[in-house]
Amino acid sequence: MATMQAVAKTTPGPGMQLIEAPIPTPGPHDVLIQVRAASICGTDLHIYHWDAWSQRRIQPPLIVGHEFAGIVVQVGEDVRPDQVQVGDHVSAESHLTCGTCRPCQLGRRHVCEHTRIIGVDADGAYAQYVAMPAENVWRNPPDMPWAVASLQENFGNSVHTVAACDVRAKRVLLTGCGPAGLMAIPVARAFGAQCIIVTDLSPYRLDLARQVGADLALNPAQDDVPARVRDLVGPGGVDVLLEMSGAPAALTQGLQLLAPGGEAALLGLPPALVDGFDLANLVIMRGIQVHGVVGRRVWETWHQMRSLISSGRVDLQPIITHEFPLSRWEEGLRVMGSGQSGKIVLYPDA
Amino acid sequence: MATMQAVAKTTPGPGMQLIEAPIPTPGPHDVLIQVRAASICGTDLHIYHWDAWSQRRIQPPLIVGHEFAGIVVQVGEDVRPDQVQVGDHVSAESHLTCGTCRPCQLGRRHVCEHTRIIGVDADGAYAQYVAMPAENVWRNPPDMPWAVASLQENFGNSVHTVAACDVRAKRVLLTGCGPAGLMAIPVARAFGAQCIIVTDLSPYRLDLARQVGADLALNPAQDDVPARVRDLVGPGGVDVLLEMSGAPAALTQGLQLLAPGGEAALLGLPPALVDGFDLANLVIMRGIQVHGVVGRRVWETWHQMRSLISSGRVDLQPIITHEFPLSRWEEGLRVMGSGQSGKIVLYPDA
Amino acid sequence: MATMQAVAKTTPGPGMQLIEAPIPTPGPHDVLIQVRAASICGTDLHIYHWDAWSQRRIQPPLIVGHEFAGIVVQVGEDVRPDQVQVGDHVSAESHLTCGTCRPCQLGRRHVCEHTRIIGVDADGAYAQYVAMPAENVWRNPPDMPWAVASLQENFGNSVHTVAACDVRAKRVLLTGCGPAGLMAIPVARAFGAQCIIVTDLSPYRLDLARQVGADLALNPAQDDVPARVRDLVGPGGVDVLLEMSGAPAALTQGLQLLAPGGEAALLGLPPALVDGFDLANLVIMRGIQVHGVVGRRVWETWHQMRSLISSGRVDLQPIITHEFPLSRWEEGLRVMGSGQSGKIVLYPDA
Amino acid sequence: MATMQAVAKTTPGPGMQLIEAPIPTPGPHDVLIQVRAASICGTDLHIYHWDAWSQRRIQPPLIVGHEFAGIVVQVGEDVRPDQVQVGDHVSAESHLTCGTCRPCQLGRRHVCEHTRIIGVDADGAYAQYVAMPAENVWRNPPDMPWAVASLQENFGNSVHTVAACDVRAKRVLLTGCGPAGLMAIPVARAFGAQCIIVTDLSPYRLDLARQVGADLALNPAQDDVPARVRDLVGPGGVDVLLEMSGAPAALTQGLQLLAPGGEAALLGLPPALVDGFDLANLVIMRGIQVHGVVGRRVWETWHQMRSLISSGRVDLQPIITHEFPLSRWEEGLRVMGSGQSGKIVLYPDA
Repeated sequence: MATMQAVAKTTPGPGMQLIEAPIPTPGPHDVLIQVRAASICGTDLHIYHWDAWSQRRIQPPLIVGHEFAGIVVQVGEDVRPDQVQVGDHVSAESHLTCGTCRPCQLGRRHVCEHTRIIGVDADGAYAQYVAMPAENVWRNPPDMPWAVASLQENFGNSVHTVAACDVRAKRVLLTGCGPAGLMAIPVARAFGAQCIIVTDLSPYRLDLARQVGADLALNPAQDDVPARVRDLVGPGGVDVLLEMSGAPAALTQGLQLLAPGGEAALLGLPPALVDGFDLANLVIMRGIQVHGVVGRRVWETWHQMRSLISSGRVDLQPIITHEFPLSRWEEGLRVMGSGQSGKIVLYPDA
Repeated sequence: MATMQAVAKTTPGPGMQLIEAPIPTPGPHDVLIQVRAASICGTDLHIYHWDAWSQRRIQPPLIVGHEFAGIVVQVGEDVRPDQVQVGDHVSAESHLTCGTCRPCQLGRRHVCEHTRIIGVDADGAYAQYVAMPAENVWRNPPDMPWAVASLQENFGNSVHTVAACDVRAKRVLLTGCGPAGLMAIPVARAFGAQCIIVTDLSPYRLDLARQVGADLALNPAQDDVPARVRDLVGPGGVDVLLEMSGAPAALTQGLQLLAPGGEAALLGLPPALVDGFDLANLVIMRGIQVHGVVGRRVWETWHQMRSLISSGRVDLQPIITHEFPLSRWEEGLRVMGSGQSGKIVLYPDA
Repeated sequence: MATMQAVAKTTPGPGMQLIEAPIPTPGPHDVLIQVRAASICGTDLHIYHWDAWSQRRIQPPLIVGHEFAGIVVQVGEDVRPDQVQVGDHVSAESHLTCGTCRPCQLGRRHVCEHTRIIGVDADGAYAQYVAMPAENVWRNPPDMPWAVASLQENFGNSVHTVAACDVRAKRVLLTGCGPAGLMAIPVARAFGAQCIIVTDLSPYRLDLARQVGADLALNPAQDDVPARVRDLVGPGGVDVLLEMSGAPAALTQGLQLLAPGGEAALLGLPPALVDGFDLANLVIMRGIQVHGVVGRRVWETWHQMRSLISSGRVDLQPIITHEFPLSRWEEGLRVMGSGQSGKIVLYPDA
Repeated sequence: MATMQAVAKTTPGPGMQLIEAPIPTPGPHDVLIQVRAASICGTDLHIYHWDAWSQRRIQPPLIVGHEFAGIVVQVGEDVRPDQVQVGDHVSAESHLTCGTCRPCQLGRRHVCEHTRIIGVDADGAYAQYVAMPAENVWRNPPDMPWAVASLQENFGNSVHTVAACDVRAKRVLLTGCGPAGLMAIPVARAFGAQCIIVTDLSPYRLDLARQVGADLALNPAQDDVPARVRDLVGPGGVDVLLEMSGAPAALTQGLQLLAPGGEAALLGLPPALVDGFDLANLVIMRGIQVHGVVGRRVWETWHQMRSLISSGRVDLQPIITHEFPLSRWEEGLRVMGSGQSGKIVLYPDA
């Protein structure tokens, strides 16, 4: 049986290992993809560190990784040529959905009641090969760089978040400049934001944010954020809040700076229950709309991504700050954990 | 100088008093209204008890009351006849708005940055007469009963809350059967809800809820609410949550029972900061939309109310459980505080 | 080879024939359904009469009929039990869609670029058996009457049309009381219409319209429609127009009676190019929104139908005016063509 | 009595005249504005040529012109300082609305039932001074060039048209590159269009369109528009149509190139009834949404304009191709009529 290199959580507990694993066999509705690039997500770090969430959800052994791009090398017998063919350059929607629950039937696959995610609930893409259902495969233009193609899974979170609100001619505050936040900046610009103010605690990330188009990048540890925001947009505050940090303090400050009648899209996940939240004054009394955002709309968000990238309205290259061969995966995770990075790409074939 | 009877907070501290006050003199853009009915709101109770919120906001002396209906007896010199005329039967939008702030200019008067409310920030309607800007006056059909006409201010909260969501052919959970919650039940029915499940701790109010159309009325203190809801609508949960209690436990339970991709409208004001709120799992991870609701849309909501009442789609009479002359205002407040009531109407001229 | 009775267009030209045809063999993703009821659509009449549209589109031999309900008697080997099982009572989405075109990928299967319709482009349901892709099958509650279940395909047009607009607390004008128009009346009521005014040239249909809830039913050949409408709703006109006749005169009159800023949903298909249309004054200058409506949203509209029927908010029984055994299909078509009917149901097993 | 120069239609019939007219006296709710720039609209040409529409609507004597900017020199006694003050640089919403009709009350002043337009139904702005209700005045930043400020009335049509659709990441076809069409190009770009294809019969305007950002500018008289559009966006067609020419041929071709489920915003006014319109196939069968667009949303569109101009997302300067002193108004109208221009600005004080 042919084998491949893969990064896997082999036993419960901290850490991962580079292993030799069997190349997956695609089922009749699946395709086999040779992975050419896989990018690191914060979720992978949680699994590596074996945090409380991972302990509840992950069942080793498991090949991790859910952001990737590659080339189709085999298709199952029930896969139709108008879906995908051998040789296609592809990325994939990482959420495996049931298709029959009520959310799926109502066109909301991103909140399927039975979602399974590759690299979390099923073998993933930190590997030389990965098998995926044909219905989860997204065909890329052949000239799209592998690294950019890999980023799309995560970029989809950014696009989904910005698209949840109407940012046309609006003043936007974006809290949290991790990779998803950084990628949201040019999207907000492309979709019509008048100005984009961002906050983060990392000077490294604030610099990156400025490079990709933030009009004002503030550090809550050093800057008087409310004063600086109101200086720029007036005392009424911003029209849209994009919360991409998961920090309750950022959420509260963001909502305080949001104008009455404004919109907030929340992508960042608070790591614990939220205490001391002033729901009455921050949300209800001011008629705020809050959009919980998860995953990507299938395939609406993917079409939006294609448009943004292919038209050049968004350039993801500056957000890719580090690249490693797959064998140096642990170094990649370490850099990711340092906060001194944008997106980090691993190359299985390097 | 002519005087009138009025109920006022005369000094800081608990209580109110029936006083003899000057009849207000309308300015050039105002009208003077002889009050024929005024209904009691929970806010009036807060002011009576002089709670923390009242201590911060209320500046005695103040005539209280903001829900009313009456007949126009005098119009200011700059009031145009196409706006309002002497003899018109009217209610009023209780929020006095500036017209020039950004929310006002964007058609969101209900979240005006400079809102003042009669009975809270300016003299109100527990009186024989009240003066209002002509632009706040809403003309009623002459045959609308005074009590029903008075209820509209509060009914507008109910309509605004239901209208914030799409309830067409949806399963609706409504938490909190105080007057605004009760009035929302027939609105949800009229706007297309498939079924309406309600919760409240008061058996009295649950009975009223059943009378005005709730399909299932549950008491969280006695019933296994999650089991009963899922029995009725299936394991996926409801499509829409209308939170009208302000109780954090109701909000959490409601969100737990809300299907992924669902909508929640929040009108109830938590009395304090909310602790232990599972924002990640209840809102973000399941792609929920949350609408903070305050006041009424001017005049969209008022037109909706007229339609609902005049077409007979909603009958507010069963929700009016007590009526008193204005002189027995304190008895009205006491009944309101008991939880053993629907809406309570006071009649200044009785 | 087992055979069955079916009604088919056997050769180009007017007419159809009752034939003995092979029972279809379902493919691996298909199910075989024993038809228990099939209802007549105006389209079937067009095919019978071999009008210009039919001559371009229909390729005999073809079993006609696309509205039906039945019981699953066989499932293909790739059909999953969570999709559909033998014994299920089912209806079907009659539009066979590709799943890969841009509209399909964007959640708009009803406007798939490669739509094929059973009974039009593929063998249909005026037969004892029909084969359908499992992904087109809709499971009904076992106690739903076969006739009502059959009507859903067409009822879906009605629900889709009403749902395209916001009818909450609105004055609605519905032009055209054929079956789809008739079925839209209780839907508009259920979704919140303040009042529903309908027009048709057939006194028979106007009577039916009144029975199912029209507030005012007018005959343009006899009544002064504009005067009667304005008497009821005031000079400003109605808020929503539902055009379900396809008659250009009805469209023009409907738009003339529509208030500025209103919405119009168009389901009725004009049989020819439209001349003398005052686009500038009827649509543009008054800021009207026009929604072209085709088919049903898959599966949003079907879920709405289930809700409306199962909750009792809509009762389709009064709209079923005639029932025949399949062998008397030609009598059914003749009655349908007379305009003296609501929906007509054929029973293959009668 | 002080007088001023003004351009007026003095008698029924073709032509206009430069006259000496009394400086208007503002009423208590009005302001008097010294006009610093006024721009020419196609409507002014219609009035000049005394076309059929003008003969029905215009009642001489009338000072024409409705696009302008200037400085407030006097305010009426009931104008509040928070509305507008002497010395403010202002433009104005040209539509005088009643405030009490149903559309006005529902936040749709742009379709007020009693709209009167300055320069059409009341004296206008081709003059040294104009009086306007304070509630129609829009304050500009003091450093906004007079010409740009004047263009806003018409620019508002462009913004309103683009904003009526969702152009985010969409392929847009814009038919008609007159001034409103030209100004819509950078708006579509700013609001997220993936690509913008434009058509016009004038090579001069197509050149201007390319300068302000059109990705592809086609002349239907010379180019195979359908082939060129499909080459660029694929066989499925564009997602959004912005019809800004009023030419029925452009409308039909635009709808033919619009993808199923797409949106069309119509601003251009066909000069006559439309014949031979294939409503069934172009709109209904493909589930198209059509938005009739008129005027500007007050003040939503004006806020969007401010944002677009002040952020530099849209630069209107390249669209201003000619400038004249007011005394050379006839030369301005002549150039406007030639089709060899963008916007043309007149300066009363030059």
